Amino acid sequence: MAMSLYQASIAPCLQSLTALSGILNKAAADAADRKIDPAVLLQSRLYPDMLPLVRQVQIATDGAKVGGARLAGVEYPSFPDVETSFEELQARIARCIEFLKSLDHEAIDAAADRHIEFSVAKRAMAMMAPEYIYGWMLPNFYFHVTTAFNILRHNGLAVGKRDFLGEVPLLG
Amino acid sequence: MAMSLYQASIAPCLQSLTALSGILNKAAADAADRKIDPAVLLQSRLYPDMLPLVRQVQIATDGAKVGGARLAGVEYPSFPDVETSFEELQARIARCIEFLKSLDHEAIDAAADRHIEFSVAKRAMAMMAPEYIYGWMLPNFYFHVTTAFNILRHNGLAVGKRDFLGEVPLLG
Repeated sequence: MAMSLYQASIAPCLQSLTALSGILNKAAADAADRKIDPAVLLQSRLYPDMLPLVRQVQIATDGAKVGGARLAGVEYPSFPDVETSFEELQARIARCIEFLKSLDHEAIDAAADRHIEFSVAKRAMAMMAPEYIYGWMLPNFYFHVTTAFNILRHNGLAVGKRDFLGEVPLLG
Repeated sequence: MAMSLYQASIAPCLQSLTALSGILNKAAADAADRKIDPAVLLQSRLYPDMLPLVRQVQIATDGAKVGGARLAGVEYPSFPDVETSFEELQARIARCIEFLKSLDHEAIDAAADRHIEFSVAKRAMAMMAPEYIYGWMLPNFYFHVTTAFNILRHNGLAVGKRDFLGEVPLLG
Protein backbone atom coordinates (compact mmCIF):
# COMPACT_ATOMS: atom_id res chain seq x y z
CA MET A 1 0.00 0.00 0.00
CA ALA A 2 1.13 3.49 -0.67
CA MET A 3 0.27 7.12 -0.87
CA SER A 4 -1.08 8.78 -3.97
CA LEU A 5 1.06 11.46 -5.55
CA TYR A 6 -1.84 13.86 -5.23
CA GLN A 7 -1.99 13.27 -1.49
CA ALA A 8 1.76 13.72 -1.17
CA SER A 9 1.91 16.97 -3.14
CA ILE A 10 -1.31 18.91 -3.67
CA ALA A 11 -3.06 18.10 -0.40
CA PRO A 12 -0.29 19.57 1.79
CA CYS A 13 -0.08 22.69 -0.39
CA LEU A 14 -3.82 23.25 -0.08
CA GLN A 15 -3.67 22.82 3.69
CA SER A 16 -0.72 25.15 4.03
CA LEU A 17 -1.87 27.86 1.62
CA THR A 18 -5.22 28.02 3.41
CA ALA A 19 -3.33 28.36 6.69
CA LEU A 20 -1.12 31.08 5.18
CA SER A 21 -4.22 32.97 4.09
CA GLY A 22 -5.50 32.87 7.68
CA ILE A 23 -2.15 34.10 9.01
CA LEU A 24 -2.10 37.00 6.54
CA ASN A 25 -5.66 37.91 7.56
CA LYS A 26 -4.50 38.09 11.17
CA ALA A 27 -1.49 40.13 10.10
CA ALA A 28 -3.67 42.65 8.25
CA ALA A 29 -6.00 43.04 11.24
CA ASP A 30 -3.08 43.34 13.63
CA ALA A 31 -1.40 45.96 11.45
CA ALA A 32 -4.61 48.02 11.50
CA ASP A 33 -4.81 47.66 15.30
CA ARG A 34 -1.20 48.66 15.85
CA LYS A 35 -1.30 51.40 13.20
CA ILE A 36 1.43 49.73 11.16
CA ASP A 37 1.51 50.51 7.45
CA PRO A 38 0.90 47.11 5.77
CA ALA A 39 3.46 48.04 3.13
CA VAL A 40 6.13 48.05 5.85
CA LEU A 41 5.24 44.49 6.84
CA LEU A 42 5.18 43.35 3.21
CA GLN A 43 8.73 44.64 2.82
CA SER A 44 10.01 43.24 6.14
CA ARG A 45 12.80 40.70 6.08
CA LEU A 46 14.83 38.71 8.61
CA TYR A 47 18.15 39.92 7.21
CA PRO A 48 19.08 42.51 4.59
CA ASP A 49 19.94 39.92 1.91
CA MET A 50 16.88 37.77 2.56
CA LEU A 51 13.65 38.26 0.64
CA PRO A 52 10.78 40.24 2.19
CA LEU A 53 7.37 38.90 3.19
CA VAL A 54 5.73 39.76 -0.11
CA ARG A 55 8.31 37.71 -2.03
CA GLN A 56 8.02 34.78 0.38
CA VAL A 57 4.29 34.58 -0.34
CA GLN A 58 4.83 35.02 -4.07
CA ILE A 59 7.44 32.26 -4.19
CA ALA A 60 5.39 29.90 -2.01
CA THR A 61 2.41 30.22 -4.34
CA ASP A 62 4.63 29.88 -7.40
CA GLY A 63 6.19 26.72 -5.97
CA ALA A 64 2.82 25.09 -5.37
CA LYS A 65 1.47 26.21 -8.75
CA VAL A 66 4.48 25.17 -10.81
CA GLY A 67 4.94 21.92 -8.90
CA GLY A 68 1.30 20.97 -9.37
CA ALA A 69 1.42 21.85 -13.07
CA ARG A 70 4.60 19.85 -13.66
CA LEU A 71 3.12 16.81 -11.94
CA ALA A 72 -0.16 17.06 -13.85
CA GLY A 73 1.64 17.81 -17.13
CA VAL A 74 -0.26 21.01 -17.82
CA GLU A 75 0.51 24.68 -18.34
CA TYR A 76 0.17 27.04 -15.42
CA PRO A 77 -1.24 30.56 -15.23
CA SER A 78 1.13 33.48 -14.80
CA PHE A 79 0.96 35.31 -11.47
CA PRO A 80 2.79 38.63 -12.03
CA ASP A 81 4.77 39.69 -8.94
CA VAL A 82 2.97 42.99 -8.47
CA GLU A 83 1.22 42.67 -5.11
CA THR A 84 1.47 45.67 -2.78
CA SER A 85 -1.20 44.86 -0.17
CA PHE A 86 -2.48 42.01 1.95
CA GLU A 87 -5.66 41.97 -0.16
CA GLU A 88 -3.64 41.40 -3.31
CA LEU A 89 -1.65 38.62 -1.67
CA GLN A 90 -4.92 37.01 -0.59
CA ALA A 91 -6.13 37.17 -4.19
CA ARG A 92 -2.92 35.49 -5.35
CA ILE A 93 -3.28 32.71 -2.78
CA ALA A 94 -6.92 32.24 -3.79
CA ARG A 95 -5.93 31.96 -7.46
CA CYS A 96 -3.26 29.44 -6.56
CA ILE A 97 -5.70 27.34 -4.53
CA GLU A 98 -8.23 27.50 -7.35
CA PHE A 99 -5.58 26.32 -9.83
CA LEU A 100 -4.45 23.46 -7.57
CA LYS A 101 -8.06 22.35 -7.13
CA SER A 102 -8.53 22.36 -10.90
CA LEU A 103 -5.73 19.82 -11.42
CA ASP A 104 -6.68 16.31 -12.39
CA HIS A 105 -5.98 13.88 -9.53
CA GLU A 106 -5.49 10.94 -11.87
CA ALA A 107 -3.04 12.79 -14.07
CA ILE A 108 -0.96 13.63 -11.01
CA ASP A 109 -1.11 10.11 -9.63
CA ALA A 110 -0.09 8.81 -13.06
CA ALA A 111 3.12 10.87 -12.88
CA ALA A 112 4.76 8.37 -10.53
CA ASP A 113 6.84 6.86 -13.33
CA ARG A 114 7.54 10.14 -15.08
CA HIS A 115 10.59 12.34 -14.97
CA ILE A 116 10.12 15.94 -13.98
CA GLU A 117 12.56 18.13 -15.88
CA PHE A 118 13.19 21.78 -15.20
CA SER A 119 16.04 24.22 -14.84
CA VAL A 120 17.19 26.42 -12.02
CA ALA A 121 19.53 29.27 -12.86
CA LYS A 122 20.21 27.61 -16.25
CA ARG A 123 21.10 24.30 -14.59
CA ALA A 124 19.03 21.45 -15.99
CA MET A 125 17.52 19.19 -13.33
CA ALA A 126 15.66 15.90 -13.66
CA MET A 127 14.01 13.84 -10.94
CA MET A 128 11.48 11.08 -10.80
CA ALA A 129 8.13 12.55 -9.73
CA PRO A 130 8.15 11.11 -6.16
CA GLU A 131 11.66 12.45 -5.57
CA TYR A 132 10.63 15.77 -7.06
CA ILE A 133 7.80 16.01 -4.53
CA TYR A 134 9.71 15.08 -1.40
CA GLY A 135 13.16 16.34 -2.35
CA TRP A 136 12.34 19.59 -4.10
CA MET A 137 8.76 20.79 -4.23
CA LEU A 138 7.76 20.43 -0.58
CA PRO A 139 10.97 21.57 1.15
CA ASN A 140 11.04 24.68 -1.06
CA PHE A 141 7.35 25.33 -0.46
CA TYR A 142 7.52 24.93 3.32
CA PHE A 143 10.67 27.03 3.43
CA HIS A 144 8.82 30.05 2.05
CA VAL A 145 5.61 29.54 4.04
CA THR A 146 7.60 29.17 7.26
CA THR A 147 9.74 32.19 6.45
CA ALA A 148 6.60 34.27 5.80
CA PHE A 149 5.33 33.13 9.21
CA ASN A 150 8.67 33.89 10.86
CA ILE A 151 8.85 37.40 9.37
CA LEU A 152 5.42 38.16 10.85
CA ARG A 153 6.28 36.60 14.22
CA HIS A 154 9.52 38.60 14.26
CA ASN A 155 7.37 41.71 13.81
CA GLY A 156 5.22 40.84 16.80
CA LEU A 157 2.22 39.09 15.24
CA ALA A 158 0.65 36.75 17.80
CA VAL A 159 0.25 33.57 15.76
CA GLY A 160 1.31 30.08 16.70
CA LYS A 161 1.84 26.57 15.44
CA ARG A 162 -1.89 25.96 15.06
CA ASP A 163 -2.13 28.88 12.65
CA PHE A 164 0.83 27.50 10.75
CA LEU A 165 -0.55 23.97 10.48
CA GLY A 166 -4.06 25.06 9.55
CA GLU A 167 -6.78 22.45 9.31
CA VAL A 168 -5.17 19.14 10.16
CA PRO A 169 -6.70 16.12 8.34
CA LEU A 170 -8.01 14.33 11.44
CA LEU A 171 -10.05 11.15 11.25
CA GLY A 172 -13.74 11.27 11.94
CA MET B 1 1.17 4.07 -9.32
CA ALA B 2 2.01 5.82 -6.15
CA MET B 3 4.66 6.81 -3.71
CA SER B 4 5.79 4.61 -0.85
CA LEU B 5 5.16 5.87 2.65
CA TYR B 6 8.86 5.53 3.35
CA GLN B 7 9.67 7.81 0.44
CA ALA B 8 7.07 10.32 1.57
CA SER B 9 8.21 10.47 5.19
CA ILE B 10 11.69 9.17 6.03
CA ALA B 11 13.49 10.13 2.83
CA PRO B 12 12.74 13.87 3.19
CA CYS B 13 13.72 13.83 6.86
CA LEU B 14 17.06 12.21 6.03
CA GLN B 15 17.72 14.77 3.28
CA SER B 16 16.80 17.68 5.52
CA LEU B 17 18.55 16.53 8.70
CA THR B 18 21.75 15.99 6.71
CA ALA B 19 21.34 19.51 5.31
CA LEU B 20 20.72 20.88 8.82
CA SER B 21 23.91 19.22 10.03
CA GLY B 22 25.83 21.00 7.26
CA ILE B 23 24.24 24.34 8.16
CA LEU B 24 25.16 23.91 11.83
CA ASN B 25 28.73 23.04 10.85
CA LYS B 26 28.91 26.30 8.91
CA ALA B 27 27.38 28.13 11.88
CA ALA B 28 29.99 26.73 14.26
CA ALA B 29 32.85 27.69 11.94
CA ASP B 30 31.39 31.15 11.37
CA ALA B 31 30.94 31.70 15.11
CA ALA B 32 34.59 30.86 15.65
CA ASP B 33 35.60 33.26 12.85
CA ARG B 34 33.49 36.10 14.19
CA LYS B 35 34.36 35.38 17.82
CA ILE B 36 30.74 34.74 18.73
CA ASP B 37 30.08 32.51 21.73
CA PRO B 38 28.23 29.49 20.27
CA ALA B 39 26.00 29.46 23.37
CA VAL B 40 24.66 32.87 22.30
CA LEU B 41 23.63 31.50 18.90
CA LEU B 42 22.06 28.40 20.46
CA GLN B 43 19.88 30.67 22.59
CA SER B 44 19.01 33.11 19.78
CA ARG B 45 15.39 33.50 18.78
CA LEU B 46 13.37 35.53 16.28
CA TYR B 47 11.06 36.92 18.95
CA PRO B 48 11.06 36.74 22.75
CA ASP B 49 8.22 34.19 22.94
CA MET B 50 9.60 31.99 20.15
CA LEU B 51 11.88 29.06 20.87
CA PRO B 52 15.66 29.42 20.49
CA LEU B 53 17.87 27.66 17.95
CA VAL B 54 18.74 24.78 20.27
CA ARG B 55 15.05 23.96 20.79
CA GLN B 56 14.30 24.21 17.07
CA VAL B 57 16.93 21.54 16.38
CA GLN B 58 15.73 19.41 19.29
CA ILE B 59 12.10 19.56 18.12
CA ALA B 60 13.00 18.92 14.47
CA THR B 61 14.89 15.76 15.43
CA ASP B 62 12.11 14.68 17.80
CA GLY B 63 9.53 15.15 15.06
CA ALA B 64 11.42 12.99 12.60
CA LYS B 65 12.19 10.34 15.24
CA VAL B 66 8.69 10.12 16.69
CA GLY B 67 7.03 10.28 13.27
CA GLY B 68 9.23 7.51 11.92
CA ALA B 69 8.63 5.35 15.00
CA ARG B 70 4.85 5.83 14.84
CA LEU B 71 4.79 4.88 11.18
CA ALA B 72 6.98 1.82 11.72
CA GLY B 73 5.10 0.86 14.89
CA VAL B 74 8.20 0.71 17.08
CA GLU B 75 9.48 2.40 20.21
CA TYR B 76 11.86 5.30 19.86
CA PRO B 77 14.97 6.21 21.83
CA SER B 78 14.86 9.13 24.25
CA PHE B 79 16.93 12.18 23.30
CA PRO B 80 17.18 14.27 26.50
CA ASP B 81 17.05 18.00 25.78
CA VAL B 82 20.43 18.79 27.28
CA GLU B 83 22.55 20.05 24.37
CA THR B 84 24.65 23.14 25.03
CA SER B 85 27.01 23.13 22.03
CA PHE B 86 26.99 22.65 18.27
CA GLU B 87 28.89 19.40 18.76
CA GLU B 88 26.13 18.04 20.98
CA LEU B 89 23.46 19.09 18.48
CA GLN B 90 25.43 17.31 15.76
CA ALA B 91 25.49 14.17 17.89
CA ARG B 92 21.73 14.40 18.35
CA ILE B 93 21.16 14.78 14.59
CA ALA B 94 23.49 11.83 13.95
CA ARG B 95 21.56 9.67 16.44
CA CYS B 96 18.30 10.69 14.79
CA ILE B 97 19.59 9.84 11.31
CA GLU B 98 20.90 6.50 12.60
CA PHE B 99 17.50 5.71 14.11
CA LEU B 100 15.63 6.67 10.93
CA LYS B 101 17.97 4.49 8.88
CA SER B 102 17.31 1.57 11.23
CA LEU B 103 13.56 1.65 10.53
CA ASP B 104 12.07 -1.13 8.46
CA HIS B 105 10.95 0.21 5.06
CA GLU B 106 8.31 -2.46 4.65
CA ALA B 107 6.81 -1.83 8.08
CA ILE B 108 6.48 1.87 7.22
CA ASP B 109 5.01 1.18 3.79
CA ALA B 110 2.55 -1.22 5.41
CA ALA B 111 1.23 1.59 7.61
CA ALA B 112 -0.83 3.05 4.75
CA ASP B 113 -4.06 1.55 6.10
CA ARG B 114 -3.26 2.16 9.75
CA HIS B 115 -4.40 4.93 12.05
CA ILE B 116 -1.75 6.94 13.79
CA GLU B 117 -2.96 7.93 17.25
CA PHE B 118 -1.24 10.37 19.55
CA SER B 119 -2.01 13.28 21.79
CA VAL B 120 -0.93 16.89 21.81
CA ALA B 121 -1.41 18.87 25.01
CA LYS B 122 -3.79 16.10 26.26
CA ARG B 123 -5.88 16.30 23.08
CA ALA B 124 -6.23 12.91 21.42
CA MET B 125 -5.57 12.95 17.67
CA ALA B 126 -6.03 10.24 15.06
CA MET B 127 -5.14 10.33 11.38
CA MET B 128 -4.65 7.80 8.66
CA ALA B 129 -0.91 7.34 8.07
CA PRO B 130 -0.76 9.22 4.73
CA GLU B 131 -2.63 12.18 6.24
CA TYR B 132 -0.36 12.02 9.28
CA ILE B 133 2.68 12.33 7.02
CA TYR B 134 1.50 15.19 4.82
CA GLY B 135 -0.76 17.01 7.29
CA TRP B 136 1.24 16.76 10.49
CA MET B 137 4.68 15.20 10.46
CA LEU B 138 6.24 17.06 7.52
CA PRO B 139 4.82 20.56 8.07
CA ASN B 140 5.91 20.41 11.72
CA PHE B 141 9.32 19.08 10.78
CA TYR B 142 9.99 21.66 8.07
CA PHE B 143 8.73 24.41 10.32
CA HIS B 144 11.49 23.74 12.85
CA VAL B 145 14.27 23.13 10.33
CA THR B 146 13.38 26.34 8.49
CA THR B 147 13.16 28.29 11.73
CA ALA B 148 16.60 27.02 12.77
CA PHE B 149 17.89 28.20 9.37
CA ASN B 150 16.14 31.55 9.74
CA ILE B 151 17.55 32.16 13.23
CA LEU B 152 21.06 31.62 11.88
CA ARG B 153 20.42 33.80 8.79
CA HIS B 154 19.02 36.50 11.06
CA ASN B 155 22.30 36.36 12.96
CA GLY B 156 24.32 36.88 9.82
CA LEU B 157 25.28 33.35 8.78
CA ALA B 158 25.91 33.24 5.02
CA VAL B 159 23.92 30.18 4.01
CA GLY B 160 21.38 29.90 1.23
CA LYS B 161 18.68 27.75 -0.27
CA ARG B 162 21.16 25.14 -1.47
CA ASP B 163 22.32 24.61 2.09
CA PHE B 164 18.70 24.29 3.19
CA LEU B 165 17.76 21.78 0.51
CA GLY B 166 20.86 19.66 0.93
CA GLU B 167 21.48 16.83 -1.49
CA VAL B 168 18.59 16.86 -3.95
CA PRO B 169 17.64 13.39 -5.29
CA LEU B 170 18.53 14.05 -8.93
CA LEU B 171 18.29 11.38 -11.59
CA GLY B 172 21.46 9.83 -12.97
